[in-house]
Amino acid sequence: MKISEITDGVCAPKGFRTAAVSCGIKKKGADRLDLALIYSDHPTVGAAVFTKNEVKAAPVRLSAANIKAREPRAIIANSGNANACTGETGRQNAEAMVAATAQALGLDPEEVQVCSTGIIGLNMPIERIVPRIPELADGLGSNNDDVARAIMTSDTKPKTYAVEYEESDGTKVRIGAIAKGAGMINPNMATMFCFVTTDAAISREKLESATKTAVDQSFNCISVDGDMSTNDTVIVIANGQAGNSDVSDTFQDALNEVMLNLAKKMVSDGERVTKLVTVRVKGAKSRDDAEKAARAVSNSKLVKCSWNGNDPNWGRIIHAVGYSGAQIEESKISISFNDLPACENGLTSPTPLDDLASAVENNQFTVGIDLNLGDGEFTMYTADLSPEYVVFNREEYALTRNRIEG
Amino acid sequence: MKISEITDGVCAPKGFRTAAVSCGIKKKGADRLDLALIYSDHPTVGAAVFTKNEVKAAPVRLSAANIKAREPRAIIANSGNANACTGETGRQNAEAMVAATAQALGLDPEEVQVCSTGIIGLNMPIERIVPRIPELADGLGSNNDDVARAIMTSDTKPKTYAVEYEESDGTKVRIGAIAKGAGMINPNMATMFCFVTTDAAISREKLESATKTAVDQSFNCISVDGDMSTNDTVIVIANGQAGNSDVSDTFQDALNEVMLNLAKKMVSDGERVTKLVTVRVKGAKSRDDAEKAARAVSNSKLVKCSWNGNDPNWGRIIHAVGYSGAQIEESKISISFNDLPACENGLTSPTPLDDLASAVENNQFTVGIDLNLGDGEFTMYTADLSPEYVVFNREEYALTRNRIEG
Repeated sequence: MKISEITDGVCAPKGFRTAAVSCGIKKKGADRLDLALIYSDHPTVGAAVFTKNEVKAAPVRLSAANIKAREPRAIIANSGNANACTGETGRQNAEAMVAATAQALGLDPEEVQVCSTGIIGLNMPIERIVPRIPELADGLGSNNDDVARAIMTSDTKPKTYAVEYEESDGTKVRIGAIAKGAGMINPNMATMFCFVTTDAAISREKLESATKTAVDQSFNCISVDGDMSTNDTVIVIANGQAGNSDVSDTFQDALNEVMLNLAKKMVSDGERVTKLVTVRVKGAKSRDDAEKAARAVSNSKLVKCSWNGNDPNWGRIIHAVGYSGAQIEESKISISFNDLPACENGLTSPTPLDDLASAVENNQFTVGIDLNLGDGEFTMYTADLSPEYVVFNREEYALTRNRIEG
Repeated sequence: MKISEITDGVCAPKGFRTAAVSCGIKKKGADRLDLALIYSDHPTVGAAVFTKNEVKAAPVRLSAANIKAREPRAIIANSGNANACTGETGRQNAEAMVAATAQALGLDPEEVQVCSTGIIGLNMPIERIVPRIPELADGLGSNNDDVARAIMTSDTKPKTYAVEYEESDGTKVRIGAIAKGAGMINPNMATMFCFVTTDAAISREKLESATKTAVDQSFNCISVDGDMSTNDTVIVIANGQAGNSDVSDTFQDALNEVMLNLAKKMVSDGERVTKLVTVRVKGAKSRDDAEKAARAVSNSKLVKCSWNGNDPNWGRIIHAVGYSGAQIEESKISISFNDLPACENGLTSPTPLDDLASAVENNQFTVGIDLNLGDGEFTMYTADLSPEYVVFNREEYALTRNRIEG
């Protein structure tokens, strides 16, 4: 079934409205949008995936409890402060945001999801947030780009994507999304969010399993620096306004496409990233082994440095595979750059170094790793490591202090 | 029992002699020493620990087989070429180095340990190495600094340490060592080696267990970039010339001190490293949990970047602890820099930011992490991550090509 890209992100599906304001949570750039609302005019079903980090921000704990209790009708999200490591005060502030949103929209608090991203360990400037929420509710309309901008932290551009497909009964179904956060690249300032709306008519059970599947093959397959934020959140809300009678497998394909599109945008937009690299492992004894190898290669600082230098360095890649924990036989490993063999059966291939180098010079290329032991496959999307990345993350201290001290 | 530092490294213990030559394995800087020999005039017992990387260099495989079969009388080691990922030719070249060394010294091949470090995936210039080995054997003497230099690759200084202590029976026992390799910081060029000599009279069994214990609390507790080389090797040779009747626990203490001293030198000498950071985790449910937390913090790119920027960023540290896999309770975690509290019970401590920053500004400081859940403890020695590190490892490609192409 054909899936086509459409415009307007979370506003593309029928019956969803959004609004965004700037309430100066980020003291620097108080003009920047930093509070966003996404609302469904109709009853919904919802599914969510939250960070596996044992350190969880207050809004993550509250949203997880709320979506367990009720279907979500609204998402209130802010950037500039993550409300993480803020203890009891943090819990109260998250509840205050939920209460104000529920009141403004005439919902029960449990129907509201709350998400925060930004600096951690500092209390929310809640007095600047709550009073602006009625204004958000009154301003609900179709302005996807504003809400996409309002959740940005270290992102350099808003991230949004939407698709449409025709269900088996001929009805058109739309899935739209916005996302932020450069792949856990900077937990102190940024977090991964993805908010998805769809007008598909679907059961909660089907939506939950489709969401888990889509997250596993997108956001769980990207790595920028291997760190994991305390606030990572994916929320999918479906309101049934497409009127489809049933949900075909194409819904899963469409949801996969939306999340993978945004996951890749996150990697490419990682701070100071110059290359989007696809690490494709095959021939592993198991999918688990393939994943171990792909993650070890994707997270190796030395491998990432070599990519930044346009270096087709298969030696560092085979090293990482060697310590990944995956079962291997050195003499069976082959490694390629854009299908040009660099290493065959564990030995240097005759491919001219210049040809390999020009493959790695691209701002997008694929590293192929064949363990030649079985059918296990796994693909990761990752990036290079640049000196500018270190400088950025080194100097964030100064930025943070400015924020703390106004 | 008192353990005192002495000079002369591997030549300090009785009955060991060394030699080093330059045979131009590194085409660049053909004047640099790159082939070393360590020899015991007397029968020995030996113990060795080799890399756990599934990709193992030819000399690692051969040395492991030899030390299993016979006690080691000699170590032949080169820098400039790791003889890794070189297949059958690599195996033959490692055997050729062993055969030539055995012949020159009148030993059986199995009494020889062979170690190589340097570029991988290229065949050894064996024709430049083997002819020089008789010269090495003839030149055996006391020149610890030369052999320490001959095994250097990206190291900026030779690493050597030796101690002496008095056994329960009053005899003096000496332990000496040389080491190289900036903590797996650059697998393509550098490897961790530590060669230890001692004149202690000790059984093979005791030496093996003492070696394992010493490695576990030294080289297995350092992390510069989290990568692991294919050639990492620790060899300990004891020749009994001290004439001690028995071995007390002080031998273990002394061996621990020697290896920990060299492990710390490796971290401080990591390419473009500006800080030696001790990460001390306590209060974990188990030693395993403490190790998970310590490794996650020590390997986090974001944490390492913050240290490079003198940023007392406990937020990134608690994040890493959160995803480490260790059991935690956020509200019980405390984090300190040189004993100054930065985070108490999961919340920001009132310690002035400037005080915390000046602790992190030191080129050596300690991060204390108390999970307040149990008695599990683990300490790692690690370093910051600098932009220069990325530049160095990015540009090694050019160096490598020069080597390949002459």
